[in-house]
Amino acid sequence: MDFQGQHILSTNQFDKDGLLVLFEEAKKMESEGGDLKGKLMATLFYEPSTRTRFSFEAAMNRLGGKVMSNADMMETSAHTKRETLEDTGKVVSKIVDVIVMRHPEKGSVAKLAAKSEVPVINAGDGASEHPTQGLLDLYTVWKEKGTLDGLIWGMVGDLKNSRVFHSQADLLRHFDVKFVLVSPEGLEMPTDYINGEFRESKDLASVIADMDVISTNRIQEERFASSEEAEKYKGALILDEVMMNGAKEDAVVLNPLPRVDEITVGVDDDPRAKYFDQVENGVYVRMALLKKVLG
Amino acid sequence: MDFQGQHILSTNQFDKDGLLVLFEEAKKMESEGGDLKGKLMATLFYEPSTRTRFSFEAAMNRLGGKVMSNADMMETSAHTKRETLEDTGKVVSKIVDVIVMRHPEKGSVAKLAAKSEVPVINAGDGASEHPTQGLLDLYTVWKEKGTLDGLIWGMVGDLKNSRVFHSQADLLRHFDVKFVLVSPEGLEMPTDYINGEFRESKDLASVIADMDVISTNRIQEERFASSEEAEKYKGALILDEVMMNGAKEDAVVLNPLPRVDEITVGVDDDPRAKYFDQVENGVYVRMALLKKVLG
Amino acid sequence: MDFQGQHILSTNQFDKDGLLVLFEEAKKMESEGGDLKGKLMATLFYEPSTRTRFSFEAAMNRLGGKVMSNADMMETSAHTKRETLEDTGKVVSKIVDVIVMRHPEKGSVAKLAAKSEVPVINAGDGASEHPTQGLLDLYTVWKEKGTLDGLIWGMVGDLKNSRVFHSQADLLRHFDVKFVLVSPEGLEMPTDYINGEFRESKDLASVIADMDVISTNRIQEERFASSEEAEKYKGALILDEVMMNGAKEDAVVLNPLPRVDEITVGVDDDPRAKYFDQVENGVYVRMALLKKVLG
Repeated sequence: MDFQGQHILSTNQFDKDGLLVLFEEAKKMESEGGDLKGKLMATLFYEPSTRTRFSFEAAMNRLGGKVMSNADMMETSAHTKRETLEDTGKVVSKIVDVIVMRHPEKGSVAKLAAKSEVPVINAGDGASEHPTQGLLDLYTVWKEKGTLDGLIWGMVGDLKNSRVFHSQADLLRHFDVKFVLVSPEGLEMPTDYINGEFRESKDLASVIADMDVISTNRIQEERFASSEEAEKYKGALILDEVMMNGAKEDAVVLNPLPRVDEITVGVDDDPRAKYFDQVENGVYVRMALLKKVLG
Repeated sequence: MDFQGQHILSTNQFDKDGLLVLFEEAKKMESEGGDLKGKLMATLFYEPSTRTRFSFEAAMNRLGGKVMSNADMMETSAHTKRETLEDTGKVVSKIVDVIVMRHPEKGSVAKLAAKSEVPVINAGDGASEHPTQGLLDLYTVWKEKGTLDGLIWGMVGDLKNSRVFHSQADLLRHFDVKFVLVSPEGLEMPTDYINGEFRESKDLASVIADMDVISTNRIQEERFASSEEAEKYKGALILDEVMMNGAKEDAVVLNPLPRVDEITVGVDDDPRAKYFDQVENGVYVRMALLKKVLG
Repeated sequence: MDFQGQHILSTNQFDKDGLLVLFEEAKKMESEGGDLKGKLMATLFYEPSTRTRFSFEAAMNRLGGKVMSNADMMETSAHTKRETLEDTGKVVSKIVDVIVMRHPEKGSVAKLAAKSEVPVINAGDGASEHPTQGLLDLYTVWKEKGTLDGLIWGMVGDLKNSRVFHSQADLLRHFDVKFVLVSPEGLEMPTDYINGEFRESKDLASVIADMDVISTNRIQEERFASSEEAEKYKGALILDEVMMNGAKEDAVVLNPLPRVDEITVGVDDDPRAKYFDQVENGVYVRMALLKKVLG
């Protein structure tokens, strides 16, 4: 799989070999760095972000490249003059070597990429995809476990609306993984996302002991019709220290952050909690990806 | 003409020799780059921008310098504490080596420049000036045609309100150019802007065959008293594939972008359409200018 | 005093030796620079800023490091998804090597620093602290006078609400300084801030002749209950050219900027006015501090 000059829009662009090559590269990035001197990256963010934008920018900076940012495209770009995403993509591609974009609407990144003459990396298009988050989730587990094959992968939370779970599920198609899916009533995983053996549960306590990976995420408030609708799920499926007592000793707890109340602060110091390490791993994965795309 | 240490506030600072020297320098920039290592540029934008801010920042980065940005001065600067533009200019000039500024009010950039101890480059002050846009427009034609002398220069659109046309006209005073001015009723070019022979028309189809350059721009909605007022001109003077059939085979189509509906997407693949090339050329022209100003 | 790896949250972290070492380092920075190549700084600003953010970013850039900015954390960060400051701190510290933060609430920077794994520098937390402003104020006087001991230090303005005066007072505890405190009725300095001999006055004209340092600042409108309340003090204690006639020939006039009307523009060209020099000195002081913190 060769990513040179390619847009990265979806997890479905990756297969097992491609993922393992990328992970080996990311591991090298932890010590080695790389050379993108003279290359320019633009970040076009139509939605708020702390970690994703900074993570991409750190990756590019650490590779020796340079970064130009627009953190608020909705307000401070030609979007306000009704420029189409296609035109914006073509224009920015005349100025920089790679584009990283986040936007609230599904398909928006592909639209911008359609006319771009340089690679565009999807940093989240609404409820749809956020492929590099999925990549760093898998990388974190791969780093901890040495492999992804043979694992019981638990997913806990708003499985219906969270693109994080969908991206993980899509990438895990390439590995021999069994799923344990735990969600509140009404927020179940759409079954077509899952490829492989799976069990469903409403009760985390009764299934947590089986999980090698405990992948969590907050209720996706912003995807509900109303805040009252979202409020109903508040406090559902909380991972706290008591719940962690029931988990495997070598379990890996994931969360894309920000968290709201789905993991208590008390869990942070548990050595199985890897959600802050994920942030660091995200930089390495993005370094590897940028290197492949621009190399 | 020596630009070292000078503010660049207006097209009227350039004469023919200066323009040609700048264009030669810009052409060198396409392959060579330059060395502004250790120099810092600040971009102070009081109005939204995608291409202009990124273009300046890419230029500075490609020259080896570094960039600090404020993309939303109205909201995230001491402007909110009522600091005068003069004080802001003096302050920022104590921190960086060159300032690039956009602001909605005519004369605002000159105000900030008045107290600045480093060069200030006007990236647009309302309906007044946007000199580097004019420079890159001329550079694009010069690159395509090898000269500007002897050309028939068509201007099509809101000739009254668009600073793009005014800047072009001002710079073209130094060349032997004839104008064909096409505008909707009521949006004619103020005659004192034009220096040289010109014809006026309301009907693009009847005059397009004469034009070596077809310079277009959108109706400047934001300069009208009301959106109803602007709405009246919607769809006037559209350049589409049929219209392009009547144009010269080696015509050069310009547009500063963003475009709204004044050029249809169907024209984009016409080899005479140079409006996306303009974006790339803009980086080279700004590299040349920054090098001259800081060199 | 060793700052390596330390958060810089408060002026009370500095003693006399530490200050003098820092000032010597800052002076070296004026000509020498330093090497933070490969280091990344993030600026997290929850409040508007022109000079402070740019000053820190210029410092880091001039030292060879790189910068990633969020100038509007309130709107374009995970703050909008209710992430705690502690989580934001931990997350960003996984990505960069040092964090610079401004926030309107007292104690907020310490909160973010509590979980950060890299040094956090306070760039202002509400009415509470802005330690690097205090450092650059003292540095400016030290550079002009060669020493801080033995000086009569005048403070003129809203002594109650301005953190600038509080930081100066706190740092000056380490030096043999006498204070002359001039404020409008009701905006007096809280007495526990001052350590050392002091006199109070309501009448600048009658005491200005004694001052070696004339430290001024605007009425802190944003700290008042209502704008009517602040309005009452408008135009109190204005330093103009006539008033300057009564000042010592070698007095040093300080102001953190932005100024509103507390110093007239006519004073700017007075050689005793050092408030724009302070901006430049701020870059050197921050270079020295970053070097110490990261070195």
